[in-house]
Amino acid sequence: MSRKYVRFEAAGAVRFGVLEGETIHELAGNFLTTEEQTGETFELSGVRLLAPTAPSKVMCIGLNYKAHAAERNKKVPDEPMLFLKPASAVIGTGDEIVYPSIAKNVDFEGELAVVIGKRTRNVSVEEARDAIFGVTVMNDVSERYYQDRDGQWGRAKGFDTFAPIGPCVVTGLKYQDLHIETKVNGDVKQSSRTSDMIFTVDELVSFCSQVMTLEPGDILTTGTPEGVGPIQPGDRIEMTIEGVGTLVNTVRAQS
Amino acid sequence: MSRKYVRFEAAGAVRFGVLEGETIHELAGNFLTTEEQTGETFELSGVRLLAPTAPSKVMCIGLNYKAHAAERNKKVPDEPMLFLKPASAVIGTGDEIVYPSIAKNVDFEGELAVVIGKRTRNVSVEEARDAIFGVTVMNDVSERYYQDRDGQWGRAKGFDTFAPIGPCVVTGLKYQDLHIETKVNGDVKQSSRTSDMIFTVDELVSFCSQVMTLEPGDILTTGTPEGVGPIQPGDRIEMTIEGVGTLVNTVRAQS
Repeated sequence: MSRKYVRFEAAGAVRFGVLEGETIHELAGNFLTTEEQTGETFELSGVRLLAPTAPSKVMCIGLNYKAHAAERNKKVPDEPMLFLKPASAVIGTGDEIVYPSIAKNVDFEGELAVVIGKRTRNVSVEEARDAIFGVTVMNDVSERYYQDRDGQWGRAKGFDTFAPIGPCVVTGLKYQDLHIETKVNGDVKQSSRTSDMIFTVDELVSFCSQVMTLEPGDILTTGTPEGVGPIQPGDRIEMTIEGVGTLVNTVRAQS
Repeated sequence: MSRKYVRFEAAGAVRFGVLEGETIHELAGNFLTTEEQTGETFELSGVRLLAPTAPSKVMCIGLNYKAHAAERNKKVPDEPMLFLKPASAVIGTGDEIVYPSIAKNVDFEGELAVVIGKRTRNVSVEEARDAIFGVTVMNDVSERYYQDRDGQWGRAKGFDTFAPIGPCVVTGLKYQDLHIETKVNGDVKQSSRTSDMIFTVDELVSFCSQVMTLEPGDILTTGTPEGVGPIQPGDRIEMTIEGVGTLVNTVRAQS
């Protein structure tokens, strides 16, 4: 059965809960470790949703949809291309993406992201599913000028607020063929399916686990489909994955 | 005045202390936040030193010594090249570097690393020093086959155990012109001075702070001088920075 979990702030505290319709049933702790409910409920509209996890690392995969590799004029890699974003870049739904004052050309990238459920090392593709707690939506915000210029993407992909994640984590969802869509100011910019990935979610989890120990709450985002494009201060970005929900962020200029 | 701080394990607990000679004076908490001593002392030889911090991110700079850029056949960058290592790669002095079973060509890279002292965003070169708690030694272990092949360095630089840091953090040290040396099995392989950096430590801290919020305990490692070379299971690597100490790790094959 599919369940939706949220991390949120209400009455000055960070809390976790199960989302049913518009109601959050608070949990006694992080949903990664407990199902115990406190009995307290919150209306979704009355809380501030946070990024659903506070990851120890954000693993990202470049060029994992053929049509996106083509639009970036890159050849399809024969192995996953792994890079990292810093935890300091993570924000939640409803938070603002800050357009850096030194940026020239910032793009959105809508992605399906995996939330790791337990410490995992060196698992096969078949075992990978056991490492996955659930899935969420991530915007792999990217500054193209520095991305093309720097060689390494630590700057271009690592600015504060460049890793919006949310709105919730969904368990029990078959993530192999979900519709994924990005709208900017209401216009559909990306519309694809996760079945168009070059490397499957399970292959990516296995791949990363051969390199680094995956920790509970870690994020692995699985690449973006075609249709990436620029964002500007004032824009409203909505990224929706079927069965998960919509990650919404607006963009503001760095003050 | 220069002081040496350590993070260590003794009697089953993680502790912090000030190192004077061979004696550790335990602190009441993390040296980043307290100077208060518990009154308890430990002999250095009787404890297990840990990586001096548990960073929320490990920022790394590529090609920051001219002679190293030359030996890697890379042009000297006109801005720092920033990449990240995952926290899961961090180990301390005395810990083993694991030579991954899929690795073909692993190199050591001795580096001066900065430990961030306080939350810092958008500081100038002149203000950067205020962000720095102290300095330590880091080995930016690198798998060259994947580094050259993958494009992004998330795999090549991100394997578990590929970020040895230690043995201690030193405050109050003038870090602009220190001798830095790497020995493998007793043979000197790197011998340079931090004054040969292309971008200074303060410039690097300022640069990174324009991109991402620096958090207390974060590591920023400042690039390696010339003389990098391969390591093999069984090797013993000693990296010494004048006034800091020696980071010692042996290499073993992945089991």
